[in-house]
Amino acid sequence: MSSTTAGQVIRCKAAVAWEAGKPLVIEEVEVAPPQAMEVRLKILFTSLCHTDVYFWEAKGQTPLFPRIFGHEAGGIVESIGEGVTDLKPGDHVLPVFTGECKECRHCKSEESNMCDLLRINTDRGVMLNDGKSRFSINGQPIYHFVGTSTFSEYTVLHVGSVAKINPAAPLDKVCVLSCGISTGLGATLNVAKPKKGSTVAVFGLGAVGLAAAEGARIAGASRIIGVDLNAKRFDEAKKFGVTEFVNPKDHEKPVHEVLAEMTNGGVDRSIECTGSINAMISAFECVHDGWGVAVLVGVPNKDDAFKTHPMNLLNERTIKGTFFGNYKPRSDLPSVVEKYMNKELELEKFITHEVSFSEINKAFEYMLRGEGLRCIIRMDA
Amino acid sequence: MSSTTAGQVIRCKAAVAWEAGKPLVIEEVEVAPPQAMEVRLKILFTSLCHTDVYFWEAKGQTPLFPRIFGHEAGGIVESIGEGVTDLKPGDHVLPVFTGECKECRHCKSEESNMCDLLRINTDRGVMLNDGKSRFSINGQPIYHFVGTSTFSEYTVLHVGSVAKINPAAPLDKVCVLSCGISTGLGATLNVAKPKKGSTVAVFGLGAVGLAAAEGARIAGASRIIGVDLNAKRFDEAKKFGVTEFVNPKDHEKPVHEVLAEMTNGGVDRSIECTGSINAMISAFECVHDGWGVAVLVGVPNKDDAFKTHPMNLLNERTIKGTFFGNYKPRSDLPSVVEKYMNKELELEKFITHEVSFSEINKAFEYMLRGEGLRCIIRMDA
Ligand SMILES: NC(=O)c1ccc[n+]([C@@H]2O[C@H](COP(=O)([O-])OP(=O)(O)OC[C@H]3O[C@@H](n4cnc5c(N)ncnc54)[C@H](O)[C@@H]3O)[C@@H](O)[C@H]2O)c1
Ligand SMILES: NC(=O)c1ccc[n+]([C@@H]2O[C@H](COP(=O)([O-])OP(=O)(O)OC[C@H]3O[C@@H](n4cnc5c(N)ncnc54)[C@H](O)[C@@H]3O)[C@@H](O)[C@H]2O)c1
Ligand SMILES: [Zn+2]
Ligand SMILES: [Zn+2]
Ligand SMILES: [Zn+2]
Ligand SMILES: [Zn+2]
Repeated sequence: MSSTTAGQVIRCKAAVAWEAGKPLVIEEVEVAPPQAMEVRLKILFTSLCHTDVYFWEAKGQTPLFPRIFGHEAGGIVESIGEGVTDLKPGDHVLPVFTGECKECRHCKSEESNMCDLLRINTDRGVMLNDGKSRFSINGQPIYHFVGTSTFSEYTVLHVGSVAKINPAAPLDKVCVLSCGISTGLGATLNVAKPKKGSTVAVFGLGAVGLAAAEGARIAGASRIIGVDLNAKRFDEAKKFGVTEFVNPKDHEKPVHEVLAEMTNGGVDRSIECTGSINAMISAFECVHDGWGVAVLVGVPNKDDAFKTHPMNLLNERTIKGTFFGNYKPRSDLPSVVEKYMNKELELEKFITHEVSFSEINKAFEYMLRGEGLRCIIRMDA
Repeated sequence: MSSTTAGQVIRCKAAVAWEAGKPLVIEEVEVAPPQAMEVRLKILFTSLCHTDVYFWEAKGQTPLFPRIFGHEAGGIVESIGEGVTDLKPGDHVLPVFTGECKECRHCKSEESNMCDLLRINTDRGVMLNDGKSRFSINGQPIYHFVGTSTFSEYTVLHVGSVAKINPAAPLDKVCVLSCGISTGLGATLNVAKPKKGSTVAVFGLGAVGLAAAEGARIAGASRIIGVDLNAKRFDEAKKFGVTEFVNPKDHEKPVHEVLAEMTNGGVDRSIECTGSINAMISAFECVHDGWGVAVLVGVPNKDDAFKTHPMNLLNERTIKGTFFGNYKPRSDLPSVVEKYMNKELELEKFITHEVSFSEINKAFEYMLRGEGLRCIIRMDA
């Protein structure tokens, strides 16, 4: 953060994934200075999300290693590259895996956050400016991940992937807004938009689904019905305002029929946060005709097909998908942080574990065991 | 219309369908007085819609004959039954195949027009009040059709299926607002809601699709792309503001790719007015990611399946269906009539033929030959 490091290569600790599925190794890496339209951040807190684990396991994808994972985090700007005017050293920021260039048709559209330039790209392991990595160990480049690579004390990002936030916000809490929590919250508040008093079904009670439920609570839903195949999720979900539970395994009937019976014809809104194609179809078919809206959040498999009878649509049902809860990261995340600051949004209940950076592999173990929701990794410990 | 007929059976002419697919026969029928919450109308003009032809052909449905078809019409209230307070003899009205009770959850919802009580029912041939028909010939009951049966000089409807309109509006024009034209218009104006300057694709250039195009013109779309398998439709469509045409048969590529190339990634809105499942899928897949909205209007076949990759949804596309263009018939049709009265909406171009009541079978022939859009049937001639 000190101006003495600006323009210099920084040597610092990073958790490097050398091979798919193998424990990360804390290494000393060299982090090059930011180039044009880039910033270098000091990461203070990072947390682990399924997407990190998924690409670390690299099952069925082209593996890209060695790589530095990590995309949920909070940090401080250390230095800025040429042309950066929106950020300055010392600014408190959240890195985001999907950016906002503010210039493309998506960024200029009120409705989209799928920036043409900085939309999530899981295949690219290098920076846009020169097609190279800013990380190296003895001259060997280490690949980036989704433009963030927050499992490093210092990291370089495109300025469009950095949201400047209120410096009074505790970074060890708001860091979870970098990805999953904002995704679920925004899916409800920005896309499903339940009216006060309405009935909302949430499919999948992981961190994303519980954030969707938190959104429903904030919107004033009168019934929040959690649907999960894993009964263990139900206890935790009570803290998130989920009022009723349905485990599809407990019923002979298809779950959309169970929900229709519980709600006199269907729920007003449903939010799918599982990634399972069956849940996506059920989430759509369980909404009420006339006004029901289903929102898909989960990332499906390559060969999945969404299939339904077109009459389900004709009967005035709506289905839409969302990416990062339709938040434009730079424009909108500051106000999500404010929701936490003014106590409208509760983040503490998402944070179930905490480890030091040297114990980062424990965070992977918790997630692989399905234990808890978010594990904060403290970079200074 | 004279008060001398109130409470009496009226003997008048009606076009009776005695058998599936056989020419209608003009018969003298007896029309019973309206019962509680019913009104009896004198029909002045009616027009023919595909739905009449479809149920008259009765292919693949349980046939219900003898029956009086007809649901697009304009008329005047002759007499009212017990409990009717919203209408009085002499009121100018449009009968509507789908009603609005104003009491159910759908009617009370801002978003839905799918009234629980009076939603379209093509299987029921009798009145709700007593489960009987109001039409008979020598004591033999003749079945109703979708609660309207406008191919008769007099007909009885539930009060919820009757929209009272401006008496200055010419019934021989605004009668086409009873069904198809409002459906297409509302699909664009109420559901797709294109912004000024946007690009709209319309699949299917029949009366419904051209009304959707008319909606796009009214909304200020800068490009209206018509898609139809029948090249003959393109000439007529030019009058409706359609600026470009695509015939899927002229291309090797799937039509959604053709549209994506023409529009730098996809159209802003698409409206499907064909009833073909392929067109429904293409209409969805041709909208731009980030903000595209597809609206389904066409009535699919029983065994159709809407199928797409869920990533198409995840990329922030929306699909919704609509029924009668989301218009609540009693609440909203009067304002659609006003759009015609103030010359915002052009109806004349939809009316391509006119016949006298005695020639009603000609209207069927035009439609079966795919000639023109709407044929007005004058009841007094
Ligand atoms: N769209 C985005 O921007 C975005 C961002 C982050 C995460 N995601 C996606 O959101 C989804 C949820 O993420 P998470 O971190 O909460 O995952 P998670 O694995 O913690 O939770 C998913 C839950 O869904 C349940 N589930 C699985 N199949 C089910 C079914 N058929 N019916 C009911 N429940 C079922 C599981 O038991 C689990 O509890 C994932 O697909 C993830 O990839 C999307
Ligand atoms: N939802 C409602 O409330 C409502 C009301 C009235 C009509 N409709 C439905 O709207 C649809 C259109 O009605 P219409 O009276 O205009 O019908 P129409 O038959 O006059 O027009 C349909 C057009 O679609 C074209 N078409 C068929 N398959 C196509 C394909 N795969 N790609 C491109 N074009 C294709 C045909 O060539 C034809 O020109 C019908 O399905 C009708 O049942 C719905
Ligand atoms: Zn952009
Ligand atoms: Zn994530
Ligand atoms: Zn109703
Ligand atoms: Zn019709």
